[in-house]
Amino acid sequence: MRADRLAQFIPASGWMRAYQRQQLPDDLLAGFITAVLLVPQGLAYAILAGLPPQVGLYASILPPVIYAFLGTSRTLSVGPVSVAALLVADALSASGSGSDATYLADALLLAAMSGVILLGMAALRLDVLVNFISHPTLSGFTSGAALLIILSQFGNLLAVSVPSTGSGFAMAMVAFAEVPQSHYLTALLGISGIALLLLSRRPLIALLTRLGMAGETATLLSRAGPLAVIVLLTALVAALDMQNRGVAIVGDIPAGLPIPQWDFLRVDRVLDLLPAAIMISLIGYVESISVARVLAYRRRQKVDNNQELVALGAANVVASFSGGMPVAGGFSRSTVNFSAGAQTQLAGMVTACLVALVALFFTPLFYYLPKAALAAIIVVAVASLFDWRGFLSAWRYDKADGCTVLVTFLGVLLLSIELGLLLGVGVATATFLWRGTRPHIAIVGRVPGTHHFRNVRRHPVETWPQLLLVRVDRSLFFANIHYVDDYVAQQVAEQPDIKHLVLVCSAVNTIDYSAIEALEQLAHSLRSAGITLHLSDVKGPVMDRLEHHDLYRWLAPGQVFLSTEQAVTNMTYHNQEPSSHD
Amino acid sequence: MRADRLAQFIPASGWMRAYQRQQLPDDLLAGFITAVLLVPQGLAYAILAGLPPQVGLYASILPPVIYAFLGTSRTLSVGPVSVAALLVADALSASGSGSDATYLADALLLAAMSGVILLGMAALRLDVLVNFISHPTLSGFTSGAALLIILSQFGNLLAVSVPSTGSGFAMAMVAFAEVPQSHYLTALLGISGIALLLLSRRPLIALLTRLGMAGETATLLSRAGPLAVIVLLTALVAALDMQNRGVAIVGDIPAGLPIPQWDFLRVDRVLDLLPAAIMISLIGYVESISVARVLAYRRRQKVDNNQELVALGAANVVASFSGGMPVAGGFSRSTVNFSAGAQTQLAGMVTACLVALVALFFTPLFYYLPKAALAAIIVVAVASLFDWRGFLSAWRYDKADGCTVLVTFLGVLLLSIELGLLLGVGVATATFLWRGTRPHIAIVGRVPGTHHFRNVRRHPVETWPQLLLVRVDRSLFFANIHYVDDYVAQQVAEQPDIKHLVLVCSAVNTIDYSAIEALEQLAHSLRSAGITLHLSDVKGPVMDRLEHHDLYRWLAPGQVFLSTEQAVTNMTYHNQEPSSHD
Repeated sequence: MRADRLAQFIPASGWMRAYQRQQLPDDLLAGFITAVLLVPQGLAYAILAGLPPQVGLYASILPPVIYAFLGTSRTLSVGPVSVAALLVADALSASGSGSDATYLADALLLAAMSGVILLGMAALRLDVLVNFISHPTLSGFTSGAALLIILSQFGNLLAVSVPSTGSGFAMAMVAFAEVPQSHYLTALLGISGIALLLLSRRPLIALLTRLGMAGETATLLSRAGPLAVIVLLTALVAALDMQNRGVAIVGDIPAGLPIPQWDFLRVDRVLDLLPAAIMISLIGYVESISVARVLAYRRRQKVDNNQELVALGAANVVASFSGGMPVAGGFSRSTVNFSAGAQTQLAGMVTACLVALVALFFTPLFYYLPKAALAAIIVVAVASLFDWRGFLSAWRYDKADGCTVLVTFLGVLLLSIELGLLLGVGVATATFLWRGTRPHIAIVGRVPGTHHFRNVRRHPVETWPQLLLVRVDRSLFFANIHYVDDYVAQQVAEQPDIKHLVLVCSAVNTIDYSAIEALEQLAHSLRSAGITLHLSDVKGPVMDRLEHHDLYRWLAPGQVFLSTEQAVTNMTYHNQEPSSHD
Repeated sequence: MRADRLAQFIPASGWMRAYQRQQLPDDLLAGFITAVLLVPQGLAYAILAGLPPQVGLYASILPPVIYAFLGTSRTLSVGPVSVAALLVADALSASGSGSDATYLADALLLAAMSGVILLGMAALRLDVLVNFISHPTLSGFTSGAALLIILSQFGNLLAVSVPSTGSGFAMAMVAFAEVPQSHYLTALLGISGIALLLLSRRPLIALLTRLGMAGETATLLSRAGPLAVIVLLTALVAALDMQNRGVAIVGDIPAGLPIPQWDFLRVDRVLDLLPAAIMISLIGYVESISVARVLAYRRRQKVDNNQELVALGAANVVASFSGGMPVAGGFSRSTVNFSAGAQTQLAGMVTACLVALVALFFTPLFYYLPKAALAAIIVVAVASLFDWRGFLSAWRYDKADGCTVLVTFLGVLLLSIELGLLLGVGVATATFLWRGTRPHIAIVGRVPGTHHFRNVRRHPVETWPQLLLVRVDRSLFFANIHYVDDYVAQQVAEQPDIKHLVLVCSAVNTIDYSAIEALEQLAHSLRSAGITLHLSDVKGPVMDRLEHHDLYRWLAPGQVFLSTEQAVTNMTYHNQEPSSHD
């Protein structure tokens, strides 16, 4: 039992006790490969957030180690992610963080606040909240954010002055106007960086496999693409002295590990940064949990939504105190970690150690690294987030879902990241409720010679002039009960001989109070018109609730039948032969 | 066909053409009885709204005639209603309408704006919007408004100075503090008015029937209660010269009919009054359509929701131009009209003519009418709106619905009428969505020897180690698909031998895009874990949509089975005998 309790608070104790020696090589290799990807990503996302590059490295050391102990995903790779970096940039430029020092302090404060918010959500078990971010909303949001990120990198790619935050439309306008002023050498570096990165993906794998290399080895090799591009372009800049010909370089990165600090905790900034902190925690959590879930499934593992809030919350708090930016589980990086063979979070710890080594000893190597190369890495990484297939697919499936994608995308791009997300959640919720207001309703009759009841409009079935069987294919609740009521009223007005009306509830999963009140009223009104209301096929949980509402009193003389067949048998017994209907 | 077209625009043409001479006596009597009720109500509600008493009479002449032509309810009695009057008082005191003249002009403008809003809603077919005002929300709203109205009448009842609008809590505080300062003669008149009105209801009917009068005649007679109280108290005031002893009286009411006017149309006030106008139109429409629907059912007639928007919109526009306050179909008055035997809207026209006669010739009779008597009429009329049974019943049925009633009630009482309603709609919607996030899910097995599949936890059924049957009792949508996903993941992790998983969709009425994407992901993840996902019992409309999403491509080798039985037969054929389970 003590082991169970330990596993509840430190999920890592589970895989640690069960660790097998043969898992070690896999974890070591995956940890190394992920580190090769994480170092350039860390530097790039720090610059995307408008922060010094080492902040991205610091965020990749302690936070993943904390996550390794507290998280329930075996393969999630926690560290800086592109969308959170964009949100940081957006929040800090909007809230008018002044000098570089304040700017950095505010970024750390954002990480601390996001951490506390996630821990608070865990305490209140609010993991269910993220369910309200529907797939179309998330798709539109991610595409919009990806496009914003790409636009924000125009400045670094072409060495022109483009605002890196704000309305995407304004950014695009400025960017296009500035193209003629671009610095050609920087642009050349940036564009060749993008080209090389694209070539290092499928084309490289295809080439290597054609040359006889095993597919898996080729894939692993292609993962070093970003690092190779960095090495190549850094060497090129250093060799050709490009930093003196106008190419912006990263410059000095202080060597060493982050020193724990808390002087960024300024209460007066908390209120200003709160909306952004909420966004960062929600979006970071949604991204992390999505990828964690997908990866856990593949190996029949389980992710605990609430424990993930704890783990990501703690990781963000630790990020802030160790000088790092907000963190989350990155989609592409975690997939790389998984497919490189990571078995446990030991791989994550290996990655963290390697990044720490880089921070300690190798930062001078990045002195000549051109900023355009980092911009190229960002652009290529987020381009794959642009989910136009998702839009087409949603649109084909249901126009309303397609509209949700589009509205969220445009909202993020033209209004603001926060408003875009809120708009998306609002549209998705409104659409869902709106749909519920016009449920599918069928008048049913019996397929002759069977016990099956089907829609009279689709099947040749028998019906009875004194009996009407109405099946509602939706739970009954406040937003649709009046529609059902109107439908019944119209049917009753059209069928003059009717004496009994049976509401077939086989597809009714819940009945809320508004609906039960309306049904009581319906029973009453039908009775004054000489018609008895009956129910049939009522599900167990629905029936339990109905009995709390004096059902038998107000339904009488109407009855509750176990099946439609039973209702028909009972009521046609003394009446007449059925009339056929088609 | 021309008659059909006419009936579409002027629904009255239907009953007019079919009018039978024997309906006339009923309509005349009902029209007279309703007029006896409407005259005191009109005066009282005008005073409740803070307007001169004749404004209530003017609103009872032309608007019901317009409604008679355009409305689809045969028995709805249109005119001033208490809640709308309260909303007018609240809006005008809040928006700082200055002098009496501006105050009246703003009230007319509110009527005109409400009319235009209702007509606009009709044009956009937004009648469905009111479905979002759930029964618990409406119950809490009505009770809160009733209590506010009663509190607002303390001033007139006791001749003390109590604010007639604002927070109910503040009003109650002032009222109780002022009780010792009350004018005893006025208080005596007011309290005896209330006592007489209460006695004129059930006690009077009981007495008269005991004295041998027919029950129906006694009920008709009791309807004259308000008029009798007015006559009695007016005579008392005049005879004892009470107006000179501090009793507030109605005083001069200008005789004559309203003159058409439009000088109240001030564009600069429109924006200030817009929120109140929206509230008045929505609440007025909800009250009207509720009672119209209830009454139409009893005689197997039909109400057209959208045409009602047109009729009530036109009635309000006409009300404003003929010097009247905003109107709606009153609940109690329409019920009186119906049970007095009204067959058609001819009864409403008769009522309107009688009110016009009163306005033309009998206004001097109301000179000595004490305001306390009108306050008594208001208090007794709205006391029956206080729906505490509704609260108890909702609470018993479902704690969440009970909370919605309570939150709306307290919101209306303590915050404001508008915020209370918004709060109620918000809580009802959030509760509904929240419920949807944790659907009932059952693992099912076969009842031995039958084709029925039931919950393994409730019934002794047969199951198969390689096969898992999961039935979700709710439509699949963005807010619950992750819960379903997690549930399946847990089951799969607990049943190591599983090779096939069948999602039984018999209770799934819709699948939205988020859910279908998650199902595709689930099929994919299960496949990587060596499990095949199948679907069974998919409903026709759901299937149509699924086929738009390349279902067979991503489900393969999984299949769609017509029934759970078919799925089981197909998959256990080559496998093994079932194991029993209980």
